[in-house]
Amino acid sequence: MKNFPLGFQSQGLHCGIGKKKTKPDLAIFISCEPCQAAGVFTQNQVKAAPVVLSQERLKKGRAAAVIINSGCANACTGDQGRKDAVKTAELVAQNMLIHANDVLVASTGVIGAHLPMDKMASGVKDLCSAISEGQNDPLQAVKAMMTTDTVPKFESVKVHSPKGVYRIWGCVKGAGMIHPNMATMISVILTDAFLPAPALKRILKSAADESFNCASVDGDTSTNDSVYLLANGASGANLTSPADLKKFEEHLKQISLSLVRRMIADGEGATKTVEITVEGGKTPSDAKKIAETVATSPLVKTAFFGNDANWGRIMAAIGRSGVKIAPEKISIAFGDLPVAKNGQALAFSEKRALEILKKKIVPVAINLGQGKAVSRAFTCDFSLDYVKINAEYRT
Amino acid sequence: MKNFPLGFQSQGLHCGIGKKKTKPDLAIFISCEPCQAAGVFTQNQVKAAPVVLSQERLKKGRAAAVIINSGCANACTGDQGRKDAVKTAELVAQNMLIHANDVLVASTGVIGAHLPMDKMASGVKDLCSAISEGQNDPLQAVKAMMTTDTVPKFESVKVHSPKGVYRIWGCVKGAGMIHPNMATMISVILTDAFLPAPALKRILKSAADESFNCASVDGDTSTNDSVYLLANGASGANLTSPADLKKFEEHLKQISLSLVRRMIADGEGATKTVEITVEGGKTPSDAKKIAETVATSPLVKTAFFGNDANWGRIMAAIGRSGVKIAPEKISIAFGDLPVAKNGQALAFSEKRALEILKKKIVPVAINLGQGKAVSRAFTCDFSLDYVKINAEYRT
Repeated sequence: MKNFPLGFQSQGLHCGIGKKKTKPDLAIFISCEPCQAAGVFTQNQVKAAPVVLSQERLKKGRAAAVIINSGCANACTGDQGRKDAVKTAELVAQNMLIHANDVLVASTGVIGAHLPMDKMASGVKDLCSAISEGQNDPLQAVKAMMTTDTVPKFESVKVHSPKGVYRIWGCVKGAGMIHPNMATMISVILTDAFLPAPALKRILKSAADESFNCASVDGDTSTNDSVYLLANGASGANLTSPADLKKFEEHLKQISLSLVRRMIADGEGATKTVEITVEGGKTPSDAKKIAETVATSPLVKTAFFGNDANWGRIMAAIGRSGVKIAPEKISIAFGDLPVAKNGQALAFSEKRALEILKKKIVPVAINLGQGKAVSRAFTCDFSLDYVKINAEYRT
Repeated sequence: MKNFPLGFQSQGLHCGIGKKKTKPDLAIFISCEPCQAAGVFTQNQVKAAPVVLSQERLKKGRAAAVIINSGCANACTGDQGRKDAVKTAELVAQNMLIHANDVLVASTGVIGAHLPMDKMASGVKDLCSAISEGQNDPLQAVKAMMTTDTVPKFESVKVHSPKGVYRIWGCVKGAGMIHPNMATMISVILTDAFLPAPALKRILKSAADESFNCASVDGDTSTNDSVYLLANGASGANLTSPADLKKFEEHLKQISLSLVRRMIADGEGATKTVEITVEGGKTPSDAKKIAETVATSPLVKTAFFGNDANWGRIMAAIGRSGVKIAPEKISIAFGDLPVAKNGQALAFSEKRALEILKKKIVPVAINLGQGKAVSRAFTCDFSLDYVKINAEYRT
């Protein structure tokens, strides 16, 4: 696996958590030494047990391993759910001879079901044996995190810094139920640079705000979203100066943005990605709210599926966003093709519009004409397959 | 037409506004005498020209006719749109020898296109000739309002009151883009009772809040929503006492609720209606916000399409509603079948759940366990046909 950071190992296997017969469903990422660690999590008030547990454990800014299962979200599972999450971490700790407090936990899958702890126990044991034998197969781990994802999604970079060469590698699972504040997505990002935990936390939050928190597939947010960032320092690159940290932050943002783009492109049923840029907002939060409202409008998203240059639906979504607007100042463009100005239709070539709308990535530019604030939202179209996938998910 | 109020006439015809070759697209409702009148309108900030014009005209609480076209929303059409709406009313006034100020206007269809005023002129002329000849075909008028609607939707009642017999008759057009605050719906309600305009306004607002404003098909709201209520007094029933007005209000609410149920059942691609009741809220606005969030969640709605008792998605939607909740106090039932209690799964019969979910109307009860406030939301499932209809609407 290209640019996988030094001092980390990873593996995935099938232990039979979900209904799928052979798909890998249990993954581990583990460092040879405890890492500086940070996380960002779902803002949904209904939080899964592993989210609550990992949030608590990350307060000390340290972790050594992340254990992730698919097929069961361990959400809405009460005290038993909490116990199962704690037990899962303990199983890893016992098998790998590390502190249970250093083990982070993540789950994704059906809400309301309990983890099959017997299967988890034997799965964790096998996984830890593989790690102890020196196995390292990040691709298998990424596959074990997948649910309705159709492709494994990862990205990496090797950075040549004045403090030495280091690597950042990240993966993400997520396809539906994705919305700003990270619904039903789990991402693990590893680096063999060293950064102090407080800096790691600040940088991760900043990168997530410009990437994961701008992504929406269907407006639904989940109980389980988590992004973990672990830095083990195994490369010897010790990043502590402001310049070093800034450089790392830039690379982390690129990695995060790339993971988001891959996630949206793999959005449930998506046939294309739509990148919405809102300019001319009075405030950043105004611009963000409008970008989100347009990005989650079923009417807008079905129009993109139909390659329909229906900018009127975008106007209507802007109008219901709750932000005070001046309709007569709004302009809209698809790619380089202006379709509306001063809130009214422009004459435009439907042929050219169709060319733009048929591409894999469709840029949409909205100018509110009210100020200088800018925001972006990444989304996908709303297709027949989205409905098929989600009508048939649980049963 | 059963219970059509005395002193009103109505007709519809095809004049070629939209792309459909023969479908009626222009409708008129007209009273022999000026009426007391009230309206409620979209809260979308992007308002179509006819909405703005009719809102102004209703300030005086008087109207004599409503002219409605489908095929073109006359929204996002700037000064020209305003002129076209004014002209349309003038055409009716000239042909029927009434005041242009007494003519209300409504449009529904594609946003951004201008009304074809030559076709409108000849259409209005033909319509007014038919009225002058004594024709009265409310069904044809209702058909002329339809866009993606699959059935004409109307309801009526004959009331025996101490002040005499009177009738209330209402119709509605709307199938998609429907959301609380009445997206893409137009309703005309007529009565031959007399009520003073201020009472009419208050009663209409109250009825709309419990019916039209609880309906959602896809969360998108429109530029053109309007409900008109005209009372011409032709029955001689003069309703002015509090008891008379209260009785009228009750009947109006029943008519409105019935129109909403028909509209949701005809929701774009809908295979069933979902009636969500939220109880135990801290405040009515909390309960309403949660009902709306669940009613507009694509994941919840696709699960209903798939007959999937996926209450976890309902929990997740509640958790992202923005209302402060206590997940461990929440219970959920489908019909008479409890599926979750204290925020956790209950053992329930999947067979029984399937029976309930396969019905045409699925009641969902959510109890937040935090207070006494109650709210309702009417929605439908999210089907393959919804996507088909909306991907192909404009082009």
